[in-house]
Amino acid sequence: MRIDLNSDLGESFGPWPMGQDAALMESITSANVACGFHAGDPGVMRQTLALARVKGVAVGAHPGFPDLVGFGRREMKATPAEVEDFVLYQVAALAGMARAQGVTLQHVKAHGALYNMACKDRALADAIAKAVAAFDRSLILFGLPNSELLRAGQAAGLPVAAEVFADRAYERDGSLTSRTRPGSVIHDTAAVVERAVRMVKDKEVIATDGSVIALQADTICLHGDTPGAADHARAVRRGLESAGIRVTALS
Amino acid sequence: MRIDLNSDLGESFGPWPMGQDAALMESITSANVACGFHAGDPGVMRQTLALARVKGVAVGAHPGFPDLVGFGRREMKATPAEVEDFVLYQVAALAGMARAQGVTLQHVKAHGALYNMACKDRALADAIAKAVAAFDRSLILFGLPNSELLRAGQAAGLPVAAEVFADRAYERDGSLTSRTRPGSVIHDTAAVVERAVRMVKDKEVIATDGSVIALQADTICLHGDTPGAADHARAVRRGLESAGIRVTALS
Amino acid sequence: MRIDLNSDLGESFGPWPMGQDAALMESITSANVACGFHAGDPGVMRQTLALARVKGVAVGAHPGFPDLVGFGRREMKATPAEVEDFVLYQVAALAGMARAQGVTLQHVKAHGALYNMACKDRALADAIAKAVAAFDRSLILFGLPNSELLRAGQAAGLPVAAEVFADRAYERDGSLTSRTRPGSVIHDTAAVVERAVRMVKDKEVIATDGSVIALQADTICLHGDTPGAADHARAVRRGLESAGIRVTALS
Amino acid sequence: MRIDLNSDLGESFGPWPMGQDAALMESITSANVACGFHAGDPGVMRQTLALARVKGVAVGAHPGFPDLVGFGRREMKATPAEVEDFVLYQVAALAGMARAQGVTLQHVKAHGALYNMACKDRALADAIAKAVAAFDRSLILFGLPNSELLRAGQAAGLPVAAEVFADRAYERDGSLTSRTRPGSVIHDTAAVVERAVRMVKDKEVIATDGSVIALQADTICLHGDTPGAADHARAVRRGLESAGIRVTALS
Repeated sequence: MRIDLNSDLGESFGPWPMGQDAALMESITSANVACGFHAGDPGVMRQTLALARVKGVAVGAHPGFPDLVGFGRREMKATPAEVEDFVLYQVAALAGMARAQGVTLQHVKAHGALYNMACKDRALADAIAKAVAAFDRSLILFGLPNSELLRAGQAAGLPVAAEVFADRAYERDGSLTSRTRPGSVIHDTAAVVERAVRMVKDKEVIATDGSVIALQADTICLHGDTPGAADHARAVRRGLESAGIRVTALS
Repeated sequence: MRIDLNSDLGESFGPWPMGQDAALMESITSANVACGFHAGDPGVMRQTLALARVKGVAVGAHPGFPDLVGFGRREMKATPAEVEDFVLYQVAALAGMARAQGVTLQHVKAHGALYNMACKDRALADAIAKAVAAFDRSLILFGLPNSELLRAGQAAGLPVAAEVFADRAYERDGSLTSRTRPGSVIHDTAAVVERAVRMVKDKEVIATDGSVIALQADTICLHGDTPGAADHARAVRRGLESAGIRVTALS
Repeated sequence: MRIDLNSDLGESFGPWPMGQDAALMESITSANVACGFHAGDPGVMRQTLALARVKGVAVGAHPGFPDLVGFGRREMKATPAEVEDFVLYQVAALAGMARAQGVTLQHVKAHGALYNMACKDRALADAIAKAVAAFDRSLILFGLPNSELLRAGQAAGLPVAAEVFADRAYERDGSLTSRTRPGSVIHDTAAVVERAVRMVKDKEVIATDGSVIALQADTICLHGDTPGAADHARAVRRGLESAGIRVTALS
Repeated sequence: MRIDLNSDLGESFGPWPMGQDAALMESITSANVACGFHAGDPGVMRQTLALARVKGVAVGAHPGFPDLVGFGRREMKATPAEVEDFVLYQVAALAGMARAQGVTLQHVKAHGALYNMACKDRALADAIAKAVAAFDRSLILFGLPNSELLRAGQAAGLPVAAEVFADRAYERDGSLTSRTRPGSVIHDTAAVVERAVRMVKDKEVIATDGSVIALQADTICLHGDTPGAADHARAVRRGLESAGIRVTALS
């Protein structure tokens, strides 16, 4: 049994720091690095890549909508062709900066509203998969289990990874409970660890209505922008390892 | 005897067209493609690359300062480290988009104020050369003859190409006459052709004071944003060919 | 009988020109000036305001989504509070630049996707109306007849103007025929003039199914970004004047 | 005897917080609010204005170069006409957002590289003064004592305020010691208070070479982006008040 732990990093911009990248990299195995459209700038990208190399953390591109002030969290009605172009641009920019440091990209995970939309909208999902496949067919595409994004990746011949959230509540249908609902985010570390272990070992999670739902889990996302995120990540990793699960990057 | 003809293309942005890229590609042999910082956007970049592939024109990255409204023409006091980062980012983005279309980058030519500053400032020149060399040592770095930019490229182990301007007046010291001076730009096509041929055949040009100055010419830059640019480019190409000079890309 | 003729102007950006502002200002009576988010920059705004003052054309703010590369034409899921803030910012910036030239703003017309969304979504419409009312209660708010935008303006105590399109087909329910449908844009100038006159004189237009629909028309929008736009505008103005309609700004 | 205490606030952007605005507003009397070009966004501007109104702090515009990632700290070779346009745009945007909240702008202080350049370059200084005067002749223009910026403000008929830095070392010629030199920033609060009191009471400061130099001080700048900035500001204010100096806004 094995699992990957991923986190969104490199989200500083210009004079504005964000996140605790170095501390989180002690526990995670894959870093999703912002590529300059919703966060990150060339200097931040270089520093994040250098840090990941030193810490031995695998690196992926984290392309988002071109909406810096909105942090890529606002839905934008971009066409599939537009999405394909700006995903390719961002993946290529990060991959090239990684290459200059002797680092090879492992994966691609769309960010924020783009990720959420592409998980449900096959045309957007296909656009992302097409961009990634055109650039490098060995890149692993992240997506929610059973999402259009994963299906598009498979259809494009890409390796894919099903991403789960141990600190988020799930609905009976396998979707994430909306953040606007009370209880949608689980803050208790012990509960998160327990859910993480169950997700990996039993490939299931208990939904908000108490039902047990099946769930493929290749990688668990840990949030890096909350206070105590690094401690939380360490606890989740130890909990998984204590349960006999090997925590390792996907590649 | 051979020469490359290059032009700055892909300078449209969003809803705003610029230049006559398709027409110019009938005559030039190398296209310098804007990478999104001073002009160009991912969609424009894709279209320009596709056009270059169809027309058989070699492609290079044309990275500029992050100053869209100023078109990268305003000097910015960026540090060498900042310049290195954003040149690498832009080159990588374009190279990756090219790769997705089966196109290999031939060269890198800095744009506007960045080019002018780096031709004189060794620290900036080294930053650009370092970024290019870290990404791909086979890329040809463009620069003015005898410039710091060419020297930096050579020091970094890059192939370099000396770029001349057949439609610009030169000073006795080999520098370009400032655009603010009368006569700095030569509009007569016959005169431009004559200068171009002499530059290639005799490796010399007549300066504004009448003196003959030596000049290495590997590539001639043709401006693409003026009315009649395509006709002008065709005439220059024919003039060179009529003089027995082979017009061909560098690679 | 009177009517205002408006057009979207000041849509150049940095090195990229757009439109035939000076020529159009010979015929229109109100200019909607881009404010820097989807088009326009401070220099373009100043020039457009100066031109409008010389030509005696009334000026309004034309705020859009912060999406330069998408020209404000892509829907963005911005919250009403976000929309209120960036409409206020844009209106204030243009109003202040106008004040510096001794010009007083007449109106506000939202641009592109923001306009279309706010015509249907009352929360966005209220956000726009609130921003305008907080800044200056004498500004006239433009919107489609019977739209949420007009209703929101009236509820906020603003003067409003119903905007019609003489060169666009209308559906039976009074909405504009989608641009993706054949025949949605009417190119024949004589037909446009006839429709314009009927809209003003009889307050009606013939829909695509042949039915006659009632329509309040305070201002007619003329597109400025098509070839022949200036000639077209002149013809529409003359046609209206020949029919005894006074063409004049709203204020 | 009286003095104004100012600080640069409203420097958050999108998802990235910066500074301790609310805490600083307990001690300062004038807030320089970023206007969206180097920092700040319409939402941040609204919140900062609302906070200043509640705290009774006077508000000024803090326009900077259009260089978000560089935080307006990099010199840009913009023309005076360009500077005039984008200062006017930014001042107008902030003034209008303030008006919507019932707040009247007190002053304008250029930011970062623009401030430093305009203090020495009369053409840039005139451009800033011209923009401010065209918008509102009652706005107070900030600048270093004896700077071109202050002289330009006076020549344009604007009220001006000489700004001093109690925590920065001064050279014999009255200029600020470069931040790259050791000892250029004074961190000891007691020393800063002593210097502040002397600046106000005796209109002088001791330079790095021990000489006493005369200095007009209308407002003291307190940095808001360092740890302990709020405590520091409180101590400076108390120190000034204990010395019998009234701490109050300029208007």
